[in-house]
Amino acid sequence: MQTRLSITQLFGIKYPIVQGGMIWCSGWELASAVSNAGGLGLIGSGSMYPGVLRDHIRKCKQATDKPFGVNVPLLYPDIEQHLSILVEEGVKIVFTSAGNPAKYTGWLKERGCTVVHVVANTKFAKKSEDAGVDAIVAEGFEAGGHNGREETTTMCLIPLIVDCVSVPVIAAGGIGCGRTMAAAMCLGASGVQVGSRFAAAAESSAHALFKEQILLAAEGSTELTLKEITPVRLLKNPFYQSVMEAYERGADVEELKLLLGRGRAKRGMFEGDIVDGELEIGQISARINRIETAAEIVEDMVSGYRAIAENRSFFND
Amino acid sequence: MQTRLSITQLFGIKYPIVQGGMIWCSGWELASAVSNAGGLGLIGSGSMYPGVLRDHIRKCKQATDKPFGVNVPLLYPDIEQHLSILVEEGVKIVFTSAGNPAKYTGWLKERGCTVVHVVANTKFAKKSEDAGVDAIVAEGFEAGGHNGREETTTMCLIPLIVDCVSVPVIAAGGIGCGRTMAAAMCLGASGVQVGSRFAAAAESSAHALFKEQILLAAEGSTELTLKEITPVRLLKNPFYQSVMEAYERGADVEELKLLLGRGRAKRGMFEGDIVDGELEIGQISARINRIETAAEIVEDMVSGYRAIAENRSFFND
Repeated sequence: MQTRLSITQLFGIKYPIVQGGMIWCSGWELASAVSNAGGLGLIGSGSMYPGVLRDHIRKCKQATDKPFGVNVPLLYPDIEQHLSILVEEGVKIVFTSAGNPAKYTGWLKERGCTVVHVVANTKFAKKSEDAGVDAIVAEGFEAGGHNGREETTTMCLIPLIVDCVSVPVIAAGGIGCGRTMAAAMCLGASGVQVGSRFAAAAESSAHALFKEQILLAAEGSTELTLKEITPVRLLKNPFYQSVMEAYERGADVEELKLLLGRGRAKRGMFEGDIVDGELEIGQISARINRIETAAEIVEDMVSGYRAIAENRSFFND
Repeated sequence: MQTRLSITQLFGIKYPIVQGGMIWCSGWELASAVSNAGGLGLIGSGSMYPGVLRDHIRKCKQATDKPFGVNVPLLYPDIEQHLSILVEEGVKIVFTSAGNPAKYTGWLKERGCTVVHVVANTKFAKKSEDAGVDAIVAEGFEAGGHNGREETTTMCLIPLIVDCVSVPVIAAGGIGCGRTMAAAMCLGASGVQVGSRFAAAAESSAHALFKEQILLAAEGSTELTLKEITPVRLLKNPFYQSVMEAYERGADVEELKLLLGRGRAKRGMFEGDIVDGELEIGQISARINRIETAAEIVEDMVSGYRAIAENRSFFND
């Protein structure tokens, strides 16, 4: 079945676990901790000015001798500066998202980078493969933060993507333990990307008050909203309620953009304004109930996964 | 890991595959075909008058000597008449949905029935267990037809439910092949319930034109809508577009109810009015590309599942 290149080989890591690059949560501390634990840590550059990004990359190199990568949202205004910094600093693994994979994949590959693009549908999966990416992250509806318009869930999306490309597929959305990791592998994924559980990790740069909200989250505590701008999964805090009120009074796109304003994600996730800030997190927050270190998370996922692999009885039901 | 009663034992069936009871699709022909193939067929009583239900049960008994069941939406107006018919006709397996499991579970159990309740959140899962059900169907956001308000996907929902009850959990939503079945088992499910793929089966009573729409469906072809009434996942046909237009002009609940009217599901799914009818189907319709017999579906699921079980390499990635 598994004829694709394994992502452990592709990235030179021990376990097929990628820590998703998340704005305001995944700086060098989280990324290096995940890489040191045997997964692939990613610095989320989407919330960083170029100088800050360079600083994080340098600190990450100091903190780990294992492979790590950087996630780059392609719609970022300083994108070319960001990409130049990655190359200058010798970053070898780049995850791109939110944009056209045809634009920079070739350029990065020519400079020796392993390139992975994040998608939420088969159309962009094929486009990514055509652009020459080494792997694809397929992210389902349940994932936190920005998300696809088709609302396809991980259970439906992974087989669709696996069947239409031949590069390795990394499953994301709703994954954060050994059981969900094993499930993703059954669906045909070659590895998993975990966001929310790492957002609540000890090494995450998320504000303590945001982490507390993640632990408190239950079923139905998040919703994919602001679809008129870019669909984003948010915790239902007072800011979210004000978005709902705007919908109630029939607000148009411009009004919604004005309401969202600028810097609201930073205010919520990094500065801890859990009332007026934007709090991006996945549905799996309902299953996250404590702060753990990145190493504890990786170990728990691997041991949970092995417990399923070693117990074959569920196949003989 | 698997300490719960297996559902193959619970129902006396060969494979842990339940065909979901679906209005206008699952009469005696589909239910008996699935049961004859080694799964558990369910007659969907939600679209049947009492006399019709009795007729379908009798025909199903004629068509199979294997166990089969009946799905009963508890909000159905003739519910007590329906339940009496089940008991009179000796139906031994009853799946209840859309209502309070505390109301009839005891009554059915006293009359020798195995009772399963369909839920979309942990609150109702616990309520069902307290009411004495023998198993629970946990249905994720991606499923077709009526659905939970929390929008929790199968990947997130199954571990949540499995961790809060001790009865067997049957996973539903996005499941229709061996890969998704194996994934559900990894998540802790004891079996799966499949709707959409059986809705398009040769023996389904869905209209040929509706079946054709299922085969044509792609990613993003369905949406969970009408949340102000009861959330329902529909194909995006012209009727769905008229619902979207109603939202655009700020329609209230009464206006939406008026627009939906009565009999629209029958019109669409049974009579083949694919323009003005309501077409209920799951996201997995994007992966359904041909009409097959129920036996072919069961065989394909079992062989796909076995292929994963026998190939351990994905655990050694």
